[in-house]
Amino acid sequence: MEGILARWERLSASSGILRFLDINLRSIGQVMFQNNPLTGILFLAAIAWGSYAADVPRVTTAGVLAVVVANLTAQWLRVDNESLYSGLYGYNGILVGLALATFLSPNALMWVYVVLGASVSVIAMLGTTNAVKPWGSSLTFPFVLTTWLLLLATYGFSGLIGTALPSGNVVTAFQPYEASPLKFIDLLQGVLQSISQVFLKANGVAALLLLVGLAVNSMAAAAFALAGAILAVLAAHLFGAESELITGGLLGFSPVLTAIALGTVFYRPGWRVAVYAMLGTLLTVIAQAALNVALTPLAIPALTAPFVFVTWMFLLPRQCFESASAVADDAATARTT
Amino acid sequence: MEGILARWERLSASSGILRFLDINLRSIGQVMFQNNPLTGILFLAAIAWGSYAADVPRVTTAGVLAVVVANLTAQWLRVDNESLYSGLYGYNGILVGLALATFLSPNALMWVYVVLGASVSVIAMLGTTNAVKPWGSSLTFPFVLTTWLLLLATYGFSGLIGTALPSGNVVTAFQPYEASPLKFIDLLQGVLQSISQVFLKANGVAALLLLVGLAVNSMAAAAFALAGAILAVLAAHLFGAESELITGGLLGFSPVLTAIALGTVFYRPGWRVAVYAMLGTLLTVIAQAALNVALTPLAIPALTAPFVFVTWMFLLPRQCFESASAVADDAATARTT
Amino acid sequence: MEGILARWERLSASSGILRFLDINLRSIGQVMFQNNPLTGILFLAAIAWGSYAADVPRVTTAGVLAVVVANLTAQWLRVDNESLYSGLYGYNGILVGLALATFLSPNALMWVYVVLGASVSVIAMLGTTNAVKPWGSSLTFPFVLTTWLLLLATYGFSGLIGTALPSGNVVTAFQPYEASPLKFIDLLQGVLQSISQVFLKANGVAALLLLVGLAVNSMAAAAFALAGAILAVLAAHLFGAESELITGGLLGFSPVLTAIALGTVFYRPGWRVAVYAMLGTLLTVIAQAALNVALTPLAIPALTAPFVFVTWMFLLPRQCFESASAVADDAATARTT
Repeated sequence: MEGILARWERLSASSGILRFLDINLRSIGQVMFQNNPLTGILFLAAIAWGSYAADVPRVTTAGVLAVVVANLTAQWLRVDNESLYSGLYGYNGILVGLALATFLSPNALMWVYVVLGASVSVIAMLGTTNAVKPWGSSLTFPFVLTTWLLLLATYGFSGLIGTALPSGNVVTAFQPYEASPLKFIDLLQGVLQSISQVFLKANGVAALLLLVGLAVNSMAAAAFALAGAILAVLAAHLFGAESELITGGLLGFSPVLTAIALGTVFYRPGWRVAVYAMLGTLLTVIAQAALNVALTPLAIPALTAPFVFVTWMFLLPRQCFESASAVADDAATARTT
Repeated sequence: MEGILARWERLSASSGILRFLDINLRSIGQVMFQNNPLTGILFLAAIAWGSYAADVPRVTTAGVLAVVVANLTAQWLRVDNESLYSGLYGYNGILVGLALATFLSPNALMWVYVVLGASVSVIAMLGTTNAVKPWGSSLTFPFVLTTWLLLLATYGFSGLIGTALPSGNVVTAFQPYEASPLKFIDLLQGVLQSISQVFLKANGVAALLLLVGLAVNSMAAAAFALAGAILAVLAAHLFGAESELITGGLLGFSPVLTAIALGTVFYRPGWRVAVYAMLGTLLTVIAQAALNVALTPLAIPALTAPFVFVTWMFLLPRQCFESASAVADDAATARTT
Repeated sequence: MEGILARWERLSASSGILRFLDINLRSIGQVMFQNNPLTGILFLAAIAWGSYAADVPRVTTAGVLAVVVANLTAQWLRVDNESLYSGLYGYNGILVGLALATFLSPNALMWVYVVLGASVSVIAMLGTTNAVKPWGSSLTFPFVLTTWLLLLATYGFSGLIGTALPSGNVVTAFQPYEASPLKFIDLLQGVLQSISQVFLKANGVAALLLLVGLAVNSMAAAAFALAGAILAVLAAHLFGAESELITGGLLGFSPVLTAIALGTVFYRPGWRVAVYAMLGTLLTVIAQAALNVALTPLAIPALTAPFVFVTWMFLLPRQCFESASAVADDAATARTT
């Protein structure tokens, strides 16, 4: 593995086209904090399979278009090469592309939107990085911000149709019901789809590809992703969340990202950090439910905002833990800088 | 008084249990910026009496449980001892406990929520303190943030029932009506309950206990609390707010906190500062009405957010006033650091 | 021109009254970033004409009262003279006055509101300036924040009647329709009213006065204002926004400000900056539509918030462009500091 990657790195250094390919693959890997082109290929396979299985292959196309546009924009903006080469200016772009193609009807303006959104995500990334530099990382906030703006605006534009957007409503009391006992098959489905929903897919095979993609770069990341998904599904069930949301993975994708970020990326792994990450993951489940409610009157999805806000909250008290500076994993280091 | 406190301090230093008791009492006092265990006892009496009178003794239990959990969490997180001993990691916790027990039905999950919320409030406190360090103090933002998240999420969880939460609605024009002349008894009730509502109680006796608790540590704080409450009630009446909200103290508790904070804690007391604090208190009444409206579609209460936002706004232009560094009151100094 | 201004500056320096007049005129000019008393006079003429033509002369009175109150408050707060003399503490005040008089019924409390709002806008200005100092300028955020608070609160106060406020509603799907072809006369009206709506007016003559006011201080500013308005109207039409909003200038006033700010004030003008400003202007159109939607449940207008948020987002990645420090225009420099 190490040998292949080293040879690939030499190849990339020798050719502008291969370097650009490398950047885009790493960008896809960085959605889950992995600075590794092989991870990027596996993640891309997960996206492609999930889109194909759901009969929306255009979602893959939009994602690929968006990541390319984002990295071209970054070059036009003359960003620093180290971050660019690590894929840090592309991971928000691909998410914007996937989200827009998932929620909107496919017409010409949607593609304009994808290009515009991918481009703006880079500016949002540069801005967020500067704003949170004293204490943290941008996470997927640029994606959330850009996509929220673009989706909200569709309610004012007749040219863009939010076919798959939630419908707006005032917040009303939850209809209490007796939660049915959790079956193992539902647990399994909820866990896998929590992982695949990071890329807006409800697909078990995609989830397995994502886990493999994580594992080839970091076993810890794969373990925390899985543990985070299990914890999220169990907690959501305990609190009595809607079964469909749980099994669809819609309460678990943000917690999965929180678990990876707190458990393996930003803090030096260990027991205290694991407990801390668990608490953060648990709070992300609650924050996901809370943001789903808070956005109900606005008729837009929460995306990964719960992950961003909770992880920021848990990154600010850095002084309580050793910093992650000594973490061997290069990918993590690149992402935290 | 000084002698008793000095002897108590010696006792606390000699025993882990007494120190922990001291920390928790100071935490309760810090809800209104007073770093004094005696103030804490009087505030606790106010809470207990208010809960007993309203036939919800569990609210006191939840508050006490929460402050203990918060201070234990702080120790686990290895926070700095000076802030810990001043009660700065517990005052948000007790408010979270009081609020959750006030708004939610009492069942097993509510107690899980209290423990979880108290624990998270410490992390929110550490994070907020870091984030606003350049220009201010955390105030009760950690309480507001944590409680909003937990309350919003109940609309997605069948296991938690927000019995006393407001019901959601779109914002509609206020039905104009001729305000009835203000009777003295209504004014008095409004003023007292504005003070007791800082601890989510509508109770005159509790208000008097709180005023005594303030006075034993700082006569200025008691005076500004009272003046702030009077100003808030009069302003709300002048603008034509709903009588029930005014007499229930629901437009006055945030202004009371703003008056104490701006008038006695963060700036060196004096005439210019008093005028400035008055303007801030007045704006807090408006901000309270504004946030009540803004949160209507979300069906959650504003808590002390109006106090937090207005006080932050009025703390940022520090350069216009001498700093509070020379304020003799140790409690104040401890809180501002 | 230079000669007249130099003589005026000598006169102002010699008399407290003329200096105060100068400050207030510059404050009006600073709404569009122009530190020039002549620009202020022309802008004031535009406001007066627009108010007269719409049969609401009190709006002009409220604006003038507000800018005077704001500058008096600034002096009471002992702000730094350089910013004060440049009009930086008054431009939010006049906007607060214009907005309150535009949206609320004229009664005694409305005038209390104008004085209070103008005064608070200065504190908000001081606070915002401190908060965003590391990376940007306050823009019109103090105006937006203050006015939002005051307008939201009217829904809780029977004494203040928001006659012209939008009505609250949950967000619903936009009724798709075939956009009619854009007529030149509609384009022209949309462009002009996009400019005049910066001062909350829908009036072509006012727009021309504003353009002249810009041109006497900075031809570039006038050109970018016009180009921004044209781009905004075309983009809004392309996306299929409501015709009435477009021709009324209600989707264009924020983009006009973004175009001036990014194109002429904060970055050294040039081709790359022009392209960047164009992207920012385009995103402001989308952000305007998005905020209109987001504020629907709250029944308040977006004001210039889309301009503020997008311009902040586009100012944060400063490292990608040369700074504006070498821009000859003194007004611009004064505003960016």
